[in-house]
Amino acid sequence: MASARSFKIALVQLKVTAEKQLNLLNARSKVLEAAKNGARLVVLPECFNSPYGTSYFPEYAEPIDGPSAKSLSDMARAANVYLVGGSFPEAKDKKFFNTCTVWNPSGDLLAVHRKIHLFDIDVPGKIRFQESETLSPGTSMTHFDTEFGKIGVGICYDIRFPELAMIAARKGCIAMIYPGAFNTTTGPLHWELLQKARAVDNQIYVAACSPARDTEASYVAWGYSSLVDPMAQVVASAKEDEAIVYGEVDLGVIETTRQSIPVTTQRRFDVYPDVAASHHA
Amino acid sequence: MASARSFKIALVQLKVTAEKQLNLLNARSKVLEAAKNGARLVVLPECFNSPYGTSYFPEYAEPIDGPSAKSLSDMARAANVYLVGGSFPEAKDKKFFNTCTVWNPSGDLLAVHRKIHLFDIDVPGKIRFQESETLSPGTSMTHFDTEFGKIGVGICYDIRFPELAMIAARKGCIAMIYPGAFNTTTGPLHWELLQKARAVDNQIYVAACSPARDTEASYVAWGYSSLVDPMAQVVASAKEDEAIVYGEVDLGVIETTRQSIPVTTQRRFDVYPDVAASHHA
Repeated sequence: MASARSFKIALVQLKVTAEKQLNLLNARSKVLEAAKNGARLVVLPECFNSPYGTSYFPEYAEPIDGPSAKSLSDMARAANVYLVGGSFPEAKDKKFFNTCTVWNPSGDLLAVHRKIHLFDIDVPGKIRFQESETLSPGTSMTHFDTEFGKIGVGICYDIRFPELAMIAARKGCIAMIYPGAFNTTTGPLHWELLQKARAVDNQIYVAACSPARDTEASYVAWGYSSLVDPMAQVVASAKEDEAIVYGEVDLGVIETTRQSIPVTTQRRFDVYPDVAASHHA
Repeated sequence: MASARSFKIALVQLKVTAEKQLNLLNARSKVLEAAKNGARLVVLPECFNSPYGTSYFPEYAEPIDGPSAKSLSDMARAANVYLVGGSFPEAKDKKFFNTCTVWNPSGDLLAVHRKIHLFDIDVPGKIRFQESETLSPGTSMTHFDTEFGKIGVGICYDIRFPELAMIAARKGCIAMIYPGAFNTTTGPLHWELLQKARAVDNQIYVAACSPARDTEASYVAWGYSSLVDPMAQVVASAKEDEAIVYGEVDLGVIETTRQSIPVTTQRRFDVYPDVAASHHA
């Protein structure tokens, strides 16, 4: 039997509350629903189990083998799906990280991504946020294997740094997945643009999964979780409310795109360096 | 006196015909008009003096010091502007190149950019084009100095390769300018997206200048010449017909953008290499 040429992905635009237990239960029910609807890979949003805010991170933080991780493992196994578990505040070595765990359909931990680029911005009169007030940054890029192909992970602000997707695609990833929580200032400006930019330059699928918008929260997430294809076309997208976005990731589309506009074989590494080449040589 | 903090740029979306002499005269009149309207830097489109097509390139080709170059030098001096002279087919060492010449307000040659990435694409049922049938590719990136700041140049398909803009911006360029002729297949998909992608990732201005659309031509250019600012907002744009697009390039906007969303200082070159670092170390 040929290996799968396409599979359904589901992005759970979860309504996140201040009650961790409620968030875990809600996530579980949505992951099971997505699996029932045919999804083979399910994505949760950034900070899926806690409000997003520097004061919340230490309060909600857990170790990588804590109850939230256990809950994610259980969900993946019960739903029999790959689960990109959004992110949760992780406590490790007296530091805190914004951490994404990835689980296989047996509930085994496949990968851990700690947000590399902390969200420290200050748009005068609009939004100021400094993740680095309480978080520490990760120090490595993350790719994981599935029977559909290799997949890369970044968290939110990581998407502004093109190297992650460039390197992932050049190392064979078919998609980049970004759990993220843009806001109502940067969301309308750059959320969809950045997904399309990563897709068109690297001819891969790009998925971004946000919490649902909660206008009562201290940090109001943008929403608009979406899947973008290798031609930078939006396959499917949510609006602001809680929703599950379904889309097909089709290896045939990647191949057709790369045959049509063959940038993947036309790069001029005689003129500029390949960012994906080993720099530890 | 402080050096200029902003200046007006003009993108001449020229109606290009099969008559070279007519194209040169039309370009001259538009460059003078743009200067009269306050432009300090004027851009012409890709293949501004010849139809776009592999069979035309050898027929219209001239040496780098031929009559078309002489004409561009005269225009720049007469208009007292920096002139990014779109491109023309260049004959050199029994080869042909798609070449952009840049002139200072005294009419001196400032820079020469030979298209690095040849436009060889094949979108089934839509468009097939193979520049490499008659052209040879350039082998270096191009930046030039003005009293407003350093500026980078690429030609059309070069814009699909993010390294050029990344390296230009990291070496201090305030803008990338792409004379280009996308078509009615790739134009609506990617023309504006690629400009915005280069702008948002590098927080620079990006200008792209197309010929006007001529539905009688063998290759139908997209049009929609435009200037995009460092927040990836369109400052000004043409539609399909001949037009001059005016926009302000403002160093203050670059600074404000980089202060608001400080990606230029947050890159993690401990995690991935800097594509702009010398690779000849």
